[in-house]
Formats: sequence, structure tokens, C-alpha cells
Amino acid sequence: MSVTTTVSQIEANGRTYRWPVRPTVVICFDGCDPAYLAASGPAGHIPTLSGFLNDGFYAIADAAMPTFTNPNNVSIVCGAPPVVHGVAGNYYLDRETKQEVMMLDARLMRAPTILSQFSKAGAKIAVVTAKDKLRKALAHEMQGIAVSAQYADKCTIEENGIEDLTGLVGRGTPDQYSSDLSLFVLDAGIRLLETRPLDILYLSLSDLVQHKHAPDAPEAHEFMKDVDDRLARLIDLGATIGIVADHGMNDLSRADGTPNVVYLGDILDEEFGEGSTRVICPITDPFVKHHGALGGFVRVHLMKDGLDRNEILKAIRTLPGVEVALTGEQAAAQFEFPLDREADIVVISCRGVALGARNIDHDISQLAGERLRSHGSLAEQQVPFIISHPLNETYAKRSIANLRNFDVFDYALNGTL
Amino acid sequence: MSVTTTVSQIEANGRTYRWPVRPTVVICFDGCDPAYLAASGPAGHIPTLSGFLNDGFYAIADAAMPTFTNPNNVSIVCGAPPVVHGVAGNYYLDRETKQEVMMLDARLMRAPTILSQFSKAGAKIAVVTAKDKLRKALAHEMQGIAVSAQYADKCTIEENGIEDLTGLVGRGTPDQYSSDLSLFVLDAGIRLLETRPLDILYLSLSDLVQHKHAPDAPEAHEFMKDVDDRLARLIDLGATIGIVADHGMNDLSRADGTPNVVYLGDILDEEFGEGSTRVICPITDPFVKHHGALGGFVRVHLMKDGLDRNEILKAIRTLPGVEVALTGEQAAAQFEFPLDREADIVVISCRGVALGARNIDHDISQLAGERLRSHGSLAEQQVPFIISHPLNETYAKRSIANLRNFDVFDYALNGTL
Repeated sequence: MSVTTTVSQIEANGRTYRWPVRPTVVICFDGCDPAYLAASGPAGHIPTLSGFLNDGFYAIADAAMPTFTNPNNVSIVCGAPPVVHGVAGNYYLDRETKQEVMMLDARLMRAPTILSQFSKAGAKIAVVTAKDKLRKALAHEMQGIAVSAQYADKCTIEENGIEDLTGLVGRGTPDQYSSDLSLFVLDAGIRLLETRPLDILYLSLSDLVQHKHAPDAPEAHEFMKDVDDRLARLIDLGATIGIVADHGMNDLSRADGTPNVVYLGDILDEEFGEGSTRVICPITDPFVKHHGALGGFVRVHLMKDGLDRNEILKAIRTLPGVEVALTGEQAAAQFEFPLDREADIVVISCRGVALGARNIDHDISQLAGERLRSHGSLAEQQVPFIISHPLNETYAKRSIANLRNFDVFDYALNGTL
Repeated sequence: MSVTTTVSQIEANGRTYRWPVRPTVVICFDGCDPAYLAASGPAGHIPTLSGFLNDGFYAIADAAMPTFTNPNNVSIVCGAPPVVHGVAGNYYLDRETKQEVMMLDARLMRAPTILSQFSKAGAKIAVVTAKDKLRKALAHEMQGIAVSAQYADKCTIEENGIEDLTGLVGRGTPDQYSSDLSLFVLDAGIRLLETRPLDILYLSLSDLVQHKHAPDAPEAHEFMKDVDDRLARLIDLGATIGIVADHGMNDLSRADGTPNVVYLGDILDEEFGEGSTRVICPITDPFVKHHGALGGFVRVHLMKDGLDRNEILKAIRTLPGVEVALTGEQAAAQFEFPLDREADIVVISCRGVALGARNIDHDISQLAGERLRSHGSLAEQQVPFIISHPLNETYAKRSIANLRNFDVFDYALNGTL
């Protein structure tokens, strides 16, 4: 006689989540500004997504600040903002060592994820990410399958819970600068769901296409169509799907097509002395070809004694293109950042403007003459929030005035029928 | 011997507000998109506002939906969203009578205002609005002074609590299509504060300048400077000032300068039969010269039996320029609207797109060839939230992730030192 323990829900970071009654797929549709849905929908390229909008639930939610990939993916899998889990950037300056550090794994994470809590209760979980560094963070303390498209050919049972991912998907590791990086993530999710029982599947795409192409570009339509085809297949497999984006995407170019950048590092060097301050761009990533590490949010650290932070703050506030400049304490309080990891000053650009460190820190030539499209500011905070199936009565009546992208697991698990 | 009753706080719509320790001025800076501050600040035109940003509190808050003047002004003075106070548009279709109705007074209001509650407790209150219809709503159940710039020369003690407003301000009724409409409001506020004790002063401006001029236009800079001068005077008079906008403002024109309008009424007439549906533009106002009653949010009522709402909803969702289309029930739940006053369908446009009824309902010629700039959609939801003085410790530590413009009385009264 076998004894089955039945768990009806799990708890993570103060919220409870109902045990999945169907396979539940949550997708972080990286960089999917609402404008992509608005452009591709009427053009007829995304019948599955349009069906979700008609028959399921569609709203605009706020992403976590800063509107970058890592803080938002981690917020989504934790169901909580950065102050809870500790990740408020892809890249940061260690306040102790004064060293710049790339977030490459889960070391910064201070909270359990919804995925890890479910896996510990016996649920079958799989995570597929575009980039491997994110895979490590999202699989924090999780049992199950966790793979990345980037290292599709390097999977081991020990590290990833599965091997021969390329064999399963039926093609090799995708080019990291192709739209196939995201499509591979979706295909891997489909193949996993086809070949084994899964309770929860988390798929995190790449925003390469959105960085390169505006919503009405043929390449964007094609990508949206390719994603849509795969969503249809996930529905065929019986999944409930929740989709959010980690951030929107805006054109940050001048009328002549050149990047509209405020090089804050150079300005502060000139005004307060070279090396007095260090400007950290938390968008920084090993993949920078498509945005040159330029986004709408930077952190400023004072690197010398005797500097007057208030004077520097006031100087930054007089710069055209700056929407908000705050002390680290203010920013931490207002945007729910972990205070102990915050910089001295936080700067957010206006819509259409990028913030940089020093000119020499950014290799604009990588854009190869294409317009700079990027994110990070408040202007990229509104993102789609989609549930494939109708909400139950309780959730249908909820106000979405304060809906956040990291409520997607709550809606997908607790809010459906 | 006289007995003084001391009230330390009042209650309105579930929130408590501390009795003002200084004259507290709350300003609804109509149509002040954050872009106006971003353009005028670095140009040096708004030293007083820039000072607030440095020494007080500045954040970006969400306006109430729809992003129109009346719902937001009423939300601000109630400290609560439309579901609480009942006003979700400037203009609506009465579901019973099927008549189109302009909101001209306080008849739609279901909740007490912060102003009325304070006035009943003995506080000295004054309200100055640009337009008279708003004055009537904002002074709902309030004792004190309530005047409008529009009818500055028509004040009576009985109706307005003061007479000879033009004499007090020192000039006649301003032209309703001039920037002086707003400046008159501010000047009236200054004169009132100079001439009598006041606990609370609510000033509601007009968005005429923002409809007509982009943030970097000389006219916009000049207006921002004129407003800033008056804020300096209010500070000199010892006031604590809280400033929010009712909505942002975006250019809704095509590249060739013509208005980028989806005439939903014509489309629905063609597809479902003339008169089957009626499209209501809740931006409609007796002052339409500057926007032709075109904004980013409309309501659709089914006017005939036997129509399939779901079919109409799906048709609307396929239209380019539509960002969200919801049933009235969905919209009421999601955006905190009063359900009993909601339409059958709610439609919100994409950034840069206006929604209209039928072409013949909108007199575009009134724009006189100028670009259409307007509001109503989610793209105009982010607004400035400014407090002139530093926050106290409790409020400084608050998350602003869910900050709303209608929290401004809470911050100005409870959040300061």
C-alpha cells in the first residue's frame, strides 16, 4: 500500500499558492512592450494571444523597478519585489569591496522562490531560460529541471536535472543573437511538457528582437507569430498559461537615428573630478550588442571622501533627460529595493533618453548603426499581464489598479477556475 | 469664557487626515505630464518646483482611470477611486434614460470629500477651480469659499462664500482659452491666503496649455515659469504645497500632423448597423476647442436588443490602435469604476492614438491645424506627485510602488513634519 501525501497549497514570501490543477506555464516574455501586442494583434499574427485577450484575462501591470531582466524575473518567481529577494539589478557595485559585480548566479537571492517551495512539496517543476546566468538564479534551491537555451548542449543530470536537451528539442544550441534563442526556450518547454508530467513550467525568453525591431517591423511581427504558434501548442497540451513581461521597450534615439544618451559618468567626472563618482549601469550584461549597456536607470556611487552628496544630486537634477534623481535611501523606500545594496544616488531618465556611465564605457559601434531601443526607466514599467483562461469570480472582481507583473503566479494558480 | 473644541483629525472614505498645522495647498496641475517638469527644470524655468524636487518629495504616481479631469479631481478631493465616489467620466450615458449627460455639478457624487469633512469640523477651506462645473462638484457638501476662474465675476456670498473675486485678484475674468485661466486660479489662491486665515486651499488648473503645446515649446516653458512664480509666493505665505496632475498628455497625431483617430462609432455603425451602438467619449466637455472631444478612452453602449456583446468586443479588439477592450464588468472591477454606471464595453487606445465616436461628432477644424495632444488612456496615467517640504520618517520609508495621485492629501497632511 502506498501513502500519498496531498498538499493543497504552498507558501512563499507571505503569499499562498494553490497546487496546480493543470500544468501551469508562466512565461516571462522579455521586452514585450504592450505595443507589440497592439501591432501584431490587429494584423492577425497572434491568433492564440488574441484568443487569450478575448477569452482569458488581459491587463496592463507594472513591472518592478528598475525595469531590467534579472530583477523582474526574480520578482516573478518570488511573487515579491526586490526588497524581499535582494536582486535590484543585473550588475552592481559591491559596497564593501568597491568591485563591480555581475549577477551570475543565485548568491544575491535572499528569498525562496515559488518554484523552490513547490518543488520541496513534491511538485514537478521545470525552468527554461534564454541565458544561463538567469537559470542559476531562478532555480535557486529548486529541485527539478532547470536548463538554458544558451547552454542547451551542456546539460547534465547533476546540474540541470536532464541531459541531451538539444536531442529532446531536435536542434542544436541557438545563436545567442538570434530570435531562435527565445523560440528554443519555448520549444524546450513544449518538448518537456510532451514527454513528462509537469506541474509548473517557467519559461524566460530573450528581448533581442524587441531591442532591434520596433513593434511594426516585419521582424517583430514574424517573431510574435512564431511565439504565438508555440503558445497554441502549449494550450493543446492542456496548460494554463500566464504571460507577463519583465519590462517594456522604447526607442531611445534622436531624430537623426543616433542614440540619445546622457553620459552621466563623463558629466560627473568633469564637474566633481575624475573618479570621484562611479556610475553603474545595472542593465550591463555579457550580451550587450543590442543595447550597448545603455538603459534608463543608473546608480551613482561616491568613491571619495568629502564629496557632498546633496550637491551632486542637485547637479544631476538639472540635467536635461533626467526624470528622477533620488538618494539611495529614497529610492530603496520608494521602489522597494534592498537598502543595504543600494547606491548613494539613483537616476532615472525621461522617456526616450538613455543614461550611460562614461562614453568610453559603452561601445555604441555594436549597434551597427541601428536605432537604440532599450529600457530601465519608468517609461518601460507598463507591461502586458495575460492569463490564457478565464479568471474565477474572486479574481475577476479584483481591482488591477496596483497589479504587478510579479502577481502572475498568483493569478495563474489562484485566480483561474 | 469661550470653549474651543479641538479636533486633531478627520475621517473621509476610510482614511484619516491630520488637522493642518500650516496652511496646506493642494494643486491639481491639470495635464502636467512629467515631461513638462523634465523639459522646464533643466532649462531653469521652474526654480521653485526644482527646489521642491530637491528638498521635498517627488515621485511618479498613477492617476485614476480614465485619465480625465473630473474623475481625477474628484478622486483627489475624496482620497479614493471612482468606485467610491461615483464619478468615472466628464460625460456619460444614463443607462436608464439612454440620454447623454454632462457632469455639471455634484449630483453624481456618492462620497464626502476631505474638504467637506474638514469644513464640517470647523476648518477654513477654499477651493478655486478653472471651470465652474468642477467647482460645484469639488465643493460638494462643503462650507467655505468655492470659486471658479470661469465665473470670477459672478461670485456671490450665497453661492461662493465670497463676492467680488475679480476685485480681490485685481483683474477681470480670464479668457477661457488662455493660459491665464490657470494663472487666475493660482492668483486667486494667493490673494485668498493673503487676506484671511485658511487651513486648506485646493486649486484646480486647466490643461489648455498642455493640449496646445509640447513640453519643449516656448509657450509651455513660459507657462511653467508663470506657475512656478506663484508657487514661490504660496511658499512665502507659509504654505505646505502638494501637487499632482489629473493626467499626463501625449501627442496623438500622425507623422503628417493630422489627428491619429480611430472613429469607433463609424466602424461599429458599419459593422453592426447604424445606431446599434453608441460610443461615448467621457472627455467631452463644453470646452473642446483644444482637443475636439478626442481622447484615449471611450465607452460603448449597445442600443438595440439582440446584439451579441462578445462579438462586438472581439471586433473592437482586432482594431489597430486599440490597446484594451473590456466588458463593463471587467473594466469596473479592474479600474475601480462604479459598476452601475458602467457601459457595456470599455475601450482604451494605444499610446499616440485617439478614439472617437463618429467622425461627424468631432469638429477637428477646431484644432485649427495644430497637432492633437490629448489623454485618457493608460499612456497618460503616470503623473508627477510633489510635496514642497520633506516627508516625515514614516512616509519617507513608504513604498511608492502603488502611489496614486489621490494620495496627495494624505501625504500633504499626514506625511509632512
